[in-house]
Order: sequence, then C-alpha cells, then structure tokens
Amino acid sequence: MAKINRGEILDFSEWYSDILEKAGIYDVRYPIKGCGVYLPYGFKIRRYAFELIRKLLDETGHDETLFPMLIPEDLLAKEAEHIKGFEDEVYWVTHGGKTPLDVKLALRPTSETPIYYMMRLWVKVHTDLPIKVYQIVNTFRYETKHTRPLIRLREIMTFKEAHTAHSTKEEAEKQVEEAISIYKKFFDVLGIPHLVSKRPEWDKFPGAEYTMAFDTIFPDGRVMQIATVHNLGQNFSKTFEIIFETPTGDKDFAYQTCYGISDRVIASIIAIHGDEKGLILPPVVAPLQIVIVPLIFKGKKEIVMEKSKEIYERLKDKYRVYIDDRDIRPGKKFYDWEIKGVPLRIEVGPKDIESGKITIFRRDTMEKFQVEDEQLEDEIEKTLNNIMENIKNKAYRKFEEYITMLEDVDLEKIRKILSEKRGVVLIPYKKEIYNEDLEEKVDATILGETNYKGKKYIAIAKTY
Amino acid sequence: MAKINRGEILDFSEWYSDILEKAGIYDVRYPIKGCGVYLPYGFKIRRYAFELIRKLLDETGHDETLFPMLIPEDLLAKEAEHIKGFEDEVYWVTHGGKTPLDVKLALRPTSETPIYYMMRLWVKVHTDLPIKVYQIVNTFRYETKHTRPLIRLREIMTFKEAHTAHSTKEEAEKQVEEAISIYKKFFDVLGIPHLVSKRPEWDKFPGAEYTMAFDTIFPDGRVMQIATVHNLGQNFSKTFEIIFETPTGDKDFAYQTCYGISDRVIASIIAIHGDEKGLILPPVVAPLQIVIVPLIFKGKKEIVMEKSKEIYERLKDKYRVYIDDRDIRPGKKFYDWEIKGVPLRIEVGPKDIESGKITIFRRDTMEKFQVEDEQLEDEIEKTLNNIMENIKNKAYRKFEEYITMLEDVDLEKIRKILSEKRGVVLIPYKKEIYNEDLEEKVDATILGETNYKGKKYIAIAKTY
Repeated sequence: MAKINRGEILDFSEWYSDILEKAGIYDVRYPIKGCGVYLPYGFKIRRYAFELIRKLLDETGHDETLFPMLIPEDLLAKEAEHIKGFEDEVYWVTHGGKTPLDVKLALRPTSETPIYYMMRLWVKVHTDLPIKVYQIVNTFRYETKHTRPLIRLREIMTFKEAHTAHSTKEEAEKQVEEAISIYKKFFDVLGIPHLVSKRPEWDKFPGAEYTMAFDTIFPDGRVMQIATVHNLGQNFSKTFEIIFETPTGDKDFAYQTCYGISDRVIASIIAIHGDEKGLILPPVVAPLQIVIVPLIFKGKKEIVMEKSKEIYERLKDKYRVYIDDRDIRPGKKFYDWEIKGVPLRIEVGPKDIESGKITIFRRDTMEKFQVEDEQLEDEIEKTLNNIMENIKNKAYRKFEEYITMLEDVDLEKIRKILSEKRGVVLIPYKKEIYNEDLEEKVDATILGETNYKGKKYIAIAKTY
Repeated sequence: MAKINRGEILDFSEWYSDILEKAGIYDVRYPIKGCGVYLPYGFKIRRYAFELIRKLLDETGHDETLFPMLIPEDLLAKEAEHIKGFEDEVYWVTHGGKTPLDVKLALRPTSETPIYYMMRLWVKVHTDLPIKVYQIVNTFRYETKHTRPLIRLREIMTFKEAHTAHSTKEEAEKQVEEAISIYKKFFDVLGIPHLVSKRPEWDKFPGAEYTMAFDTIFPDGRVMQIATVHNLGQNFSKTFEIIFETPTGDKDFAYQTCYGISDRVIASIIAIHGDEKGLILPPVVAPLQIVIVPLIFKGKKEIVMEKSKEIYERLKDKYRVYIDDRDIRPGKKFYDWEIKGVPLRIEVGPKDIESGKITIFRRDTMEKFQVEDEQLEDEIEKTLNNIMENIKNKAYRKFEEYITMLEDVDLEKIRKILSEKRGVVLIPYKKEIYNEDLEEKVDATILGETNYKGKKYIAIAKTY
C-alpha cells in the first residue's frame, strides 16, 4: 500500500485501488469498463450506509417506491433541456431478442421523466400533494471520461433519488431545505465533512431552477461532489402536465424538487477516514464493529476460547461482533482486521484472564489498553463513541486545512494554491467575476456560491 | 371488485388487477408493456418479504453482493445451452449516447455467466470453497407471452438469485437441499402452500443438471411457479474455468448450484390470502399491523383521541401501528383498511373507554370482539398469531382441495379435471409415460416428479 506522510496519503489513487481489493470492497475485474462487483464486505458497508439514509427519509415522510429502469425514448425526450444534458450519456436498448424495438428504450440516467409521467396520474387536487417518494436503484451513464470505482461509474450501482411535488413554490423551497438538512445529518453521522454550495447557472442540473451541491475533499486535495439537491420549479410539471386544483378552484402546475446520493458515499467513507494501514470505518457502518482474537498458548486453548465465547455472548446482542478462531498467527489476524477497518479488537490471552482484565485495541489510534472485566460493556460503548468522535474531528480538521479563504481575487494566487496545496479556494463573492471565464482563467472548477463562517464566497477547486 | 363464491374468487384476473390498484400495490400505467411501478404500500410488503428471505440466507452463511446488470455478449454466449434458453428473451444495449458499442451488452436475464466469470478469479484451492453469494436485483426478459403485473414481467423488479460453488458433488447436492429448506421456511412463514417437484428434463433450467421447483395454486386453480433451485453440476464451471486444487493436489472443476425467487412472491401473498373485500396480509409482511380508529362523538373527541394515543404508545415499539385520525366517517376508514388487509383494527369509542374495554376487529374473519383494557397487549399478540395460523390453514386447505390424486393414468379424466376443477393432478409415477407427449395428450404442463404423502407422482397442471 502507498505510504502516508503527515497524515496525507501520498499516492491516493494507488492507495484507493489497493484498499478496494485488499479489504474486499469492490472488484474491478468485471469485463466492462466502469462496471464492477460489490463484494460481501463492501456490500455490508453499503447496506448500513443506506439503512441510515432510508431511516432519515422515512422519518421525514418520504415513501420508498420502485420505478422501471427502462424509459421510452419519447418520454425521455419530452423535457428538452433535461435530455440535452444527458443525450451523450444514455445507453440505448434497441433490440428484444432478435426483434428491433419500435421505440428505443433508455437505461435510466436518473428518473425525473418516468416518475413525473406517473405523478401526473396521481395528482388531481391540492390535497393529493405533497408527494415525497424515493427509490434506491442502479442508473447508467455512458461516461466518456476516465472511470473510477465507486466514483465515476458507467453503472452507478446505488443511486438514492428522491422526488417531490408540492402545491406552492414556498413549500418546494422548504423541501430543498429539508433535503439539505437530511443530507447534512447523514454525512455528519458518517463523519464526512462537506461544503454546501449553490452551483453556478452553467453547472446546474439539466431542467432545474437551481442546484445545491455537497462537496467533500479527498486526501489528494481534489474535490468530490457527494450529493445534489435540485429545485425544479415548474419546469417538469409543465412538460408532464402535473396539474392540480388549488384550494380556490384554480389550476396550477406542481412545484417540484429532487435530490440524490450515489455510491460516492461509500467511496467517501473509505477515502476520508482510511490511513496507510487500511480502512478506518465509522462504527455505524462497520460490517464488524468488534473482532475478538483469542491468543492461544500451549495448554491454555480451552480457557482462552471459553473466555472469548463468554465475551462474544455478552456483546452479540448490541454489536456486530465476531470471534476470529482461524488457525493462524495472531499477528496475521491483527493485520487482516486492521486493513478491513474493524473499529475495535479484543485480545483474549491467559494472562489477562488470570488478572481479570481485558485488552482492547482501537483501530483509529492504534492504541492498546486494558479494562476491568466487569467494566467491558461500558468501556466498549464509550470507546466506540470516542472513535467516532475522533475520526470525525480528524476528518473535519483535514478538511478545514484544505480550505483557503482569500480576501481578494488574485488569479495567480488562486492557480498556485489549487495546483500546489489543492483543496478549495474561497474568494469573496462578486457578481461581476462570477462566470465561466473565471474557470478558464484559474484552470479549475467553480463549485458555486457558498456561505462559510458567516461570509458569502465563490468556491473554486480542482474536482474529480 | 369481482364477487366471491364458495370461498373462490370467480374472476380472479379482474379481482387481481383491481386489488393492485385499490390497495396501492403496483401501478400498471407505466408506458412500457410488462413494466410497472411499486407504490409505497406495495413496496413495503416487498421490503418485509425480502427482509425475511435475507435473514434466512444470512443465517445459513450466504453473503449478499451486487453484480453489474450489463453482460457483454461474448460472456453470455459462452455457455451454449444457457444462451440458447434465453436468446429470444434478451434485451440488447447497442448504443452509448450516439456511439454504437463495440460489443453488444445484454440486460441480465439472470446472472450465472457474469457471476461465474468472477468466481473463476476468486477460486484457487479447495479452501476457497464453498462460495455462497446472493443478490437482489432487477432482471429482464423480453416476454412475448401475455404479461401480468408481478407475475410475468419484462422487468422483473425483484429477483433474489443465489449462486454457490463447492468442492464436491455431494456438497452441491446438500446445497440444493439447504436451498429447498430455506424456501420452504420462507413460504411457510408467509402461509403460501407449495408443491416441490423435480422438473422434467425438457423443462429444466438451461445449463442445469436438474431443476427443483416450487409451485403454488392460485384462486383460479392455475399453477404458479414461485421458486426454483438448480443443480448446475460442472456445466458452468467447465465453461468458465472455475478450477480448484483439491486436498490431494489434483485439479477439479467446482460444483455449482443456483436458486431464485422473484416478485411472484408478492403476487402470491396477494392472491393466496385475499378475499372479496381486499387484501388479507400475513402480519409479518403487513406494512401496518394494527390501525387505530378513533370513533368520535360530539363532545367526546378529546377523551377518544387521548385514549387512541395511549394505545398507540403502548403498541408502537412492538408493532407497526397507526392512528387514522382523518376527518371522514369511520365506515370509510374501515373500508379503506380492509382493502389494504391490515390484520387488526382497534376501535376506540367513548362507551368502551367508560367500561374499560377495547374493541378489536380481525380482518381475516371479519370478527369484532372486546377485551379488557389491561389484557390488550396479550390479546393482540395472541390474535396476530391466530390470524397467521388461520390464514395459513385456510390456504393449505384450499390447496389440498385443488390436488387430485389418481390411481391410474386416464387421459380423459386428467383432461376433464384440469379443465373443470383445475389445480394439480397427481398420477402414479411411471417412467414410460413421463415424456413431452403426455403434455400434448392432456393439454397441460407436466410440473415434474414429486413426492406427495409418501408416494411418488407425476404432477400435471395448467400453469400461468
């Protein structure tokens, strides 16, 4: 694995490929570019992460649904701006068996058009609103750029997309706020630092009034978009005729929003918290939260195994815990579980048993310490909380270090920072410089307008 | 909704369409034939059903994974018998954006070929085996037959497919048994009666050594295949070169099995248990298990609402429960929740409150009864168990009535039973008549060899 220096991963790209393989996250050897396989360990991280977002959405009145993956060409073509944004990226099904299809079918790049086609059928009067639905599905983009596992895929295996319709503009605005607050909570629980900005006009979602985006910063200093929230206004509802009767008996078009999160969440969990020894997983998404390693010495096997099982029984109802009783050296076991980022390791040896103590190892700090046997449950709970607190703080510190606030617009300086230190450069918001020309001048991407520590900025970065 | 007579739904087809719409299960109005939308209520039934199967698979050492949906043509074409079985049914992606693809990509009809391509990379020595993986995904069949919601789809939205590899033939045989016992448990928990048979040679899965199938009987007397388990032998491992070193240092090809369950589970839950008033849901998959309906009389609103909330609080940690406080007549509420098959309804009225009693209504029997307030929790637990027991027994009774055991092979009689009474006809197993000709002669499908009440039969039926 690539070396780490001063807390930064020197060759992040190499490290990232390496960890996906060694930790059993994702296998890139599938014979289609931009498609890969979620391995059991990686799938579990995904499962726990998506349980979190599901819970947050269910609690706020979103209903989970499932829409077809195929979209007839004429449906996709309905919203002109939208299709224009996707036309180079759409995969087309043209044949069923040996039969050419009458109408070409697109693999969904995202589901505005099919969902809004159905919403038209569901909405008659204002009491039918709001509608707040979501689905977790695969989506497809025929990427011409360099693909990267879980970051830039041709099959996005996990796309959580929410779609809402409301009876007033104000309510749609509020929905944008709710979506932002849901995503903030989600990333906070995972300890993923983020900057929220309003994307510039030329970079908004095709068909949206405006786009709010969440960005984080990867260990190589490049910025990764990890979530977006769009206010669609009445653009789609006019095209798809989502019309309702208002309380006064008038007709109006629904006001809509949509927002999404992808596999990049999983990439971020890996990238943001990992170190040179492997993954460091937030306990909430760790497939195993605790691994018990029996230290077996001659003639002491029975007592060690017995104690290991006793500890397992004490913890199993509350935590995802496992006894690693493979017949190999403990050092090899430690190494394996450190790569996989298991937050806590309990070592059970004959000496500890005699003295009534238990040895705990923290993956985040690589510290080992002893606790009294009867204190175990309390100490574990406390330590897991501390681990989460610590990795989150560490991530936020790194993130802040990567943010450079400038007091004025100095193109040379911006370019220099972005090519040497990288991260995000914030310059004071000025309407007259807020245009695509600036992107060219600094050879970087304008993330958008953002509020940072009480001031309004233009955020600029090199992005993925 | 269509009328019921003698416990049978006269026009099942009409009833089924009706219930999908009225109970909010699945919307068929999507503009592609054989594709539809899982609505929130239907999606929840699906979620709870698939939680059950997931648990059964996880407990028996299966690992959840996720494989790409696209399969390069050359990969799919590798196993000749397999592709032949699917070639008329495969959807082909031929273009990415406006660019024709070098290699056509199939939408997975099922995932043997991509999964076994990867297994080859994972298997080196016998200690790498067994591998037991599964995934829950959408799959595609370009059906030329009449499509039916959740029964015969072009996009199968929910396909649970498991794939295993083993180091001996015996172990693969055992895996087939394990799969059958998992599916038996699953259908038993849902109260779905089933007949397990070994499909005839001419109807086995393309590429399999043999196929075991689960069939149930729908209210119209027609048979529905609801799960299959395949022993693949070394057919795929030879093609995909899944080779391992045996304990003695030899090389061998892995022995494989695969088994699947689809959206038909959801169709079966609906069809098997429903009645003329709507759905009757097994509590384990009911999106709501209990609905509380406050009966509001003049001047008594406050006390009724307070009691309703108290009951809600007492039940909410253990059950999926909801207070229906809509401002409409109670009769309308009763009607709505009966259609949706909520197992229990609690009616809260001022008189009951005064007398310290609570009124409970059972959806399955349409019975109403009173319990002492302090007995509520116990009575609810008991009643939910009774409901499950009752709907299961009822389903099994109907199923048995639909099975006709004949002592000899009388073609005329078989034809008559299958066209009038329908269901399954069992005739004593005789090798000499076990062939495709028999299917033609009786104008029905041979399900296969089956053991029923200790005897070996050939099962024949009209199928979906």
